[in-house]
Amino acid sequence: MNDVNIYETDELVSQYCDFQYGEDIFGVENFAKVCAQKAIGYSKCTQQGKALDIGCATGRASFELTKVFDHVDGIDYSQTFIDTALELQKNGRILYAQNREGELKSSILVDMTMYSFRDSCIKARFFQGDACNLESQFNGYDLIMATNLIDRLYEPQLFLNTIHERVTNGGILLLTSPYTWREEYTAKEFWIGGYTDENGDEILALEGLKQLLEENFDLLATEEVPFVIRETSRKFQHTISQMSVWRRR
Amino acid sequence: MNDVNIYETDELVSQYCDFQYGEDIFGVENFAKVCAQKAIGYSKCTQQGKALDIGCATGRASFELTKVFDHVDGIDYSQTFIDTALELQKNGRILYAQNREGELKSSILVDMTMYSFRDSCIKARFFQGDACNLESQFNGYDLIMATNLIDRLYEPQLFLNTIHERVTNGGILLLTSPYTWREEYTAKEFWIGGYTDENGDEILALEGLKQLLEENFDLLATEEVPFVIRETSRKFQHTISQMSVWRRR
Repeated sequence: MNDVNIYETDELVSQYCDFQYGEDIFGVENFAKVCAQKAIGYSKCTQQGKALDIGCATGRASFELTKVFDHVDGIDYSQTFIDTALELQKNGRILYAQNREGELKSSILVDMTMYSFRDSCIKARFFQGDACNLESQFNGYDLIMATNLIDRLYEPQLFLNTIHERVTNGGILLLTSPYTWREEYTAKEFWIGGYTDENGDEILALEGLKQLLEENFDLLATEEVPFVIRETSRKFQHTISQMSVWRRR
Repeated sequence: MNDVNIYETDELVSQYCDFQYGEDIFGVENFAKVCAQKAIGYSKCTQQGKALDIGCATGRASFELTKVFDHVDGIDYSQTFIDTALELQKNGRILYAQNREGELKSSILVDMTMYSFRDSCIKARFFQGDACNLESQFNGYDLIMATNLIDRLYEPQLFLNTIHERVTNGGILLLTSPYTWREEYTAKEFWIGGYTDENGDEILALEGLKQLLEENFDLLATEEVPFVIRETSRKFQHTISQMSVWRRR
């Protein structure tokens, strides 16, 4: 087992390690684990061969999916996130710095032997990639999950308009998002919802998703899934993500 | 009753109106109300003549204090916050824009007749002022409360080192803070805690407060008080503030 260097993990990676591997906060269960479990449940009606976790961050949901799927690809825009997932897979552990107060931090160990995917995790492969410009090799998936991704893409339509080409017939597309549209991530013209259209109707994101996806998918279910991200020992982001589950026709 | 114009309230004022007058979220009770109730409780052992709510924002806790105190001063650095408190006091109502998703907002009415301080609220006076450079007229208080203030001051020592001069003997100083120290608000050299001192000891804010206040105050109690601030209909700041209650010797 190689040495781990806490200073390799930058602020955002540490925050996501805590989000994906840290302890539950306010009684809210680990979001990546819950999403993977729900994805496994919804995909029981189809094959569970190949899965894609797009926007996988530090890989927790990808690892969870390896317990059931034969093969899991995890893709993230951030090479640092991908490096962290790969380090966990290779070294079996990582240290991250959890913010407490001001400059004070705690060093937290993630130990892969503590998880039920400790043996299956080798089935995951991780790649840096852009959800809006995905390489053609990424296709033939029985499940694609994209958690808290679409409101951070520069043009989510590029992802959503072509994603059906990568899902097998009867396969599942599982999206979650709190729809926190911000111009620094997504120009207003590309927001899926959160605006008033030319007829004066308010368009919420679920309506916008239907307009983009219903040609190729049936909407199976929606669920509200909470998550909590620690900023300090006293300050947290507490968010309710909307999960929408789509089956490829 | 004058007309109210929703466009007079800017983004931050709307967020604070929602924080101070909006509905409870995640089962967490209104923070300003809870703090005022606790302040009233802790000050029962002394006179309840004059109170100061420093960093009063849109005035909710100041109004709550008028139910018991003869006279309440509310001070905030933001003139817009003070204008909002004054408008509520004068017009009895205000409309603010609650963020939902993207550009979509709901218009929410605050109606003072719904509150138990509807008659007593005239006892409050509101002023724009700087907690680090408070005018000499603000003195002789049986209670001073400063909720979520000290980690937003440019030099909290200027406030804390002189505040005893404004409190009556036996009077109460009630502070709350999540100690979210940030250099954009407070230069690192002025942080009360959240650093390692020259002996290598970790200084948390409560320790720093003791060093500044124990010469003139006894620490009566500490409590953990949660609060929630809405950013959108799905995204919230969920924070645990530490309350510390000090009695002037």
